Amino acid sequence: MAEFKLHCFGESGNSYRVALMLQLCGCDWEPVFVPFFKGGTRDPDWRVRFNEMGEAPVLEHGALKLTQSGVILDYLAERTGKFGPHNPEERREILRWILYDNHKFTSYYATLRFQVGLTHQGDPAVHEFLRGRVTAAWKIVDTHLAGADFLVGGRPTIADLSLAGYVYYTEETGLDTRALFPNIVAWSERIKALDGWQAPYNLMPRD
Amino acid sequence: MAEFKLHCFGESGNSYRVALMLQLCGCDWEPVFVPFFKGGTRDPDWRVRFNEMGEAPVLEHGALKLTQSGVILDYLAERTGKFGPHNPEERREILRWILYDNHKFTSYYATLRFQVGLTHQGDPAVHEFLRGRVTAAWKIVDTHLAGADFLVGGRPTIADLSLAGYVYYTEETGLDTRALFPNIVAWSERIKALDGWQAPYNLMPRD
Repeated sequence: MAEFKLHCFGESGNSYRVALMLQLCGCDWEPVFVPFFKGGTRDPDWRVRFNEMGEAPVLEHGALKLTQSGVILDYLAERTGKFGPHNPEERREILRWILYDNHKFTSYYATLRFQVGLTHQGDPAVHEFLRGRVTAAWKIVDTHLAGADFLVGGRPTIADLSLAGYVYYTEETGLDTRALFPNIVAWSERIKALDGWQAPYNLMPRD
Repeated sequence: MAEFKLHCFGESGNSYRVALMLQLCGCDWEPVFVPFFKGGTRDPDWRVRFNEMGEAPVLEHGALKLTQSGVILDYLAERTGKFGPHNPEERREILRWILYDNHKFTSYYATLRFQVGLTHQGDPAVHEFLRGRVTAAWKIVDTHLAGADFLVGGRPTIADLSLAGYVYYTEETGLDTRALFPNIVAWSERIKALDGWQAPYNLMPRD
């Protein structure tokens, strides 16, 4: 049995950032498929056993069950000594970008892609609202990356892995992110060049 | 001059959670009003001087300028020795709830209140979408609080102060949160009973 078990599904960028971290750190891990689209994470029994928040990913490590990708990335950085902060200031900067990611960078994009590119649901007015939010949030990251190879400290950290959760998926969103955010594209290529990098659907089983 | 300067505005629950922390800890602090509704946080010069993310709050402490309320709460807990974790497990639990807050609990609610209760803008379909998201996210917190006085460790922590950011505002959202989420209401009353508690508009100047 692998040392780490990651409850996840391929379409989940929230899961991918953890899968990528495990992979880049050379951890002994295996994915455990959660049938999200069939309600797997919302099942009452699954909530009790794995995550009351009804979300993937969940990382099992020995007796520990960790949820929220930001918590898991922080845990793995500390454990492996890789992609973490070198000092308290970097620690705050990394947390700052992970919070921004959860609040604005990933959250709106993930919902937009889910509705437009995966389930083909939702109101067009909602899609437009989400596109506006994504554009504003991605612009801030794109501007930051105009003057930096990586988000914090000039090297890849868990902040980059967090924000990279959804940037390699190609499902339709109605936004031409490659044209709009050239610095994000260049940054995503730098992450892609890291030793051991794999695309989401190569690391996790999909529906 | 006060030891801590908090760049904020009264309508901002993201600012309020930090103002409340400073107040409950008995810190020597003062608010600095940011004219958010007149574009104060989006001004290019303000972004360079205070926060490239274009958001309040910003906490100035000596030469440090800290942004993202989750980072600031963590910093203040460490500095003051109050409302922080007692061990690594609690630290992860607190971060987990703060991330959930940024991703789902506060983010949708704040946007809904902003559009419906403050600026009276936005598409009705977007309001309905946001109400659906708020209801799902708040239900998870309400269920957690059915069996716990506070979110983590049976005592108030920065996780509670984070999620409490928007619960005392009374602007219209079209959701009867008091009827829908009784455990959140009871929890908010417990926080309100803490020594030194003040309502948002008593701590920060509003527009």
